[in-house]
Amino acid sequence: MTDVPAEFDRATDVTASGDGTYDADLGAGWVVGGAINGGYLLATLGRALGRTVPGKPDPVAVSAYFVSASTPGPATVTTRVLRDGGSVATLAADVTQGDAHRITALATYGDLSGLPDEVATTATPPDLPPLQRCVGFADAPPGSREQAPPLMSRFDMRFDPASAGWAVGAPSGRGLIQCWFRLPDREPDPLSLLLAVDAMPPVTFDLGMFGWAPTLELTVHLRARPAPGWLRLRHETRNVAGGMFEEDCEVWDAADRLVAQSRQLARTPRA
Amino acid sequence: MTDVPAEFDRATDVTASGDGTYDADLGAGWVVGGAINGGYLLATLGRALGRTVPGKPDPVAVSAYFVSASTPGPATVTTRVLRDGGSVATLAADVTQGDAHRITALATYGDLSGLPDEVATTATPPDLPPLQRCVGFADAPPGSREQAPPLMSRFDMRFDPASAGWAVGAPSGRGLIQCWFRLPDREPDPLSLLLAVDAMPPVTFDLGMFGWAPTLELTVHLRARPAPGWLRLRHETRNVAGGMFEEDCEVWDAADRLVAQSRQLARTPRA
Repeated sequence: MTDVPAEFDRATDVTASGDGTYDADLGAGWVVGGAINGGYLLATLGRALGRTVPGKPDPVAVSAYFVSASTPGPATVTTRVLRDGGSVATLAADVTQGDAHRITALATYGDLSGLPDEVATTATPPDLPPLQRCVGFADAPPGSREQAPPLMSRFDMRFDPASAGWAVGAPSGRGLIQCWFRLPDREPDPLSLLLAVDAMPPVTFDLGMFGWAPTLELTVHLRARPAPGWLRLRHETRNVAGGMFEEDCEVWDAADRLVAQSRQLARTPRA
Repeated sequence: MTDVPAEFDRATDVTASGDGTYDADLGAGWVVGGAINGGYLLATLGRALGRTVPGKPDPVAVSAYFVSASTPGPATVTTRVLRDGGSVATLAADVTQGDAHRITALATYGDLSGLPDEVATTATPPDLPPLQRCVGFADAPPGSREQAPPLMSRFDMRFDPASAGWAVGAPSGRGLIQCWFRLPDREPDPLSLLLAVDAMPPVTFDLGMFGWAPTLELTVHLRARPAPGWLRLRHETRNVAGGMFEEDCEVWDAADRLVAQSRQLARTPRA
């Protein structure tokens, strides 16, 4: 590692412009399905929120409502402190591009380093084959790499072969995708977990629905600072109804802790 | 049924006072654990939001951040329309009592009657014994009814005996509570689902932690208008860590549809 900031940190950088407002520059490298990836946007607004209240740098809960599709280029993150007291603060953020409202969000921020250590988690980590038996972007068929969205080059994902059939036109039909995940040039931290929960292809790919699945709402809860090393991601859906589906994502760290949980409500892709 | 409004409708009634602001009167009958029940508050602000945009009366997604504990008496619900276009609108609501900020919320509203009919849900309904073999408030030991919080008299809940051990000091330790649920004097509708997702005792009761579990954030997704009849509720937790736990609730209607899903992040009760 050098002193050069990692790609993710450069791309989600924000500059204070006064009164709780921050300037961002949304990178074209984070485009997928004709819009900017939601997790990247969450990390960008999350970085601005982490600077608003001294001593409360970390997201504990963030709920983002996606108002319109963001595009590469300048954006403004406007933050408000709704309440600061005790161990957490309640915050709000809005992302705009010119006159267009892109995202509105609410959040609880605090200090993840200061949380109690007791854990009584009954959830179990993703049942993933070892890293070397999982399939990555480098294993994609010739030709398909060039057609992949730019987002796919921003991180290293190694999919469980049993949940990667969609990549070769043979989805499992279970509504479950899981993988190993890391950023190429830095260790995970709370901000990168905001990216991780929305990094995989929509779980509807595993149901044979390959269109874009626009997110209406995404909420993520963070429970601990992640340990260094690979993360494991699993997301799944159990309720495809009313033209929408829920997508529940879990992020497990190298110390076998369930460090983040998210749920989003998205529109089912049109056939 | 008569023309008299049901208790729930009277208690969640709001009166427009101009500029998207509504007056409410929070009822003492909805107190539990020293504060007003979160589901009741969600339904009250949800009713105000349903009046803001013509043709979009129903909650599709609502995320509420609980800023401070509400108390019985007058309250103000301030609503804002962030975007209205297409089939849904993005809205915001704040609940205040005097100078005190109680709740801040974001929401997607639409018309649940207009959603597509296709369903591909793999989740299964709660495995509940028949109603007559479940235990209700009327079955509570003598003396305990008088000590029960007022909230318990607002609806009819019949618990699965296997997940009701906490009521007699013998929690199962699974972190799962499920029951039949109905309002005594009306059929379910989308607004009453906002109440239902937070009606049961905290799932931590089933883990032997009997204190108050303050909600930091609660998000609910609605997928269909519920059919008339009893609802079935199941909530559970799988990640008790960092001094917090998540509580996932499912609401199933009499037509065997998963009509609502919620997740909340709450503080673990102090021992």
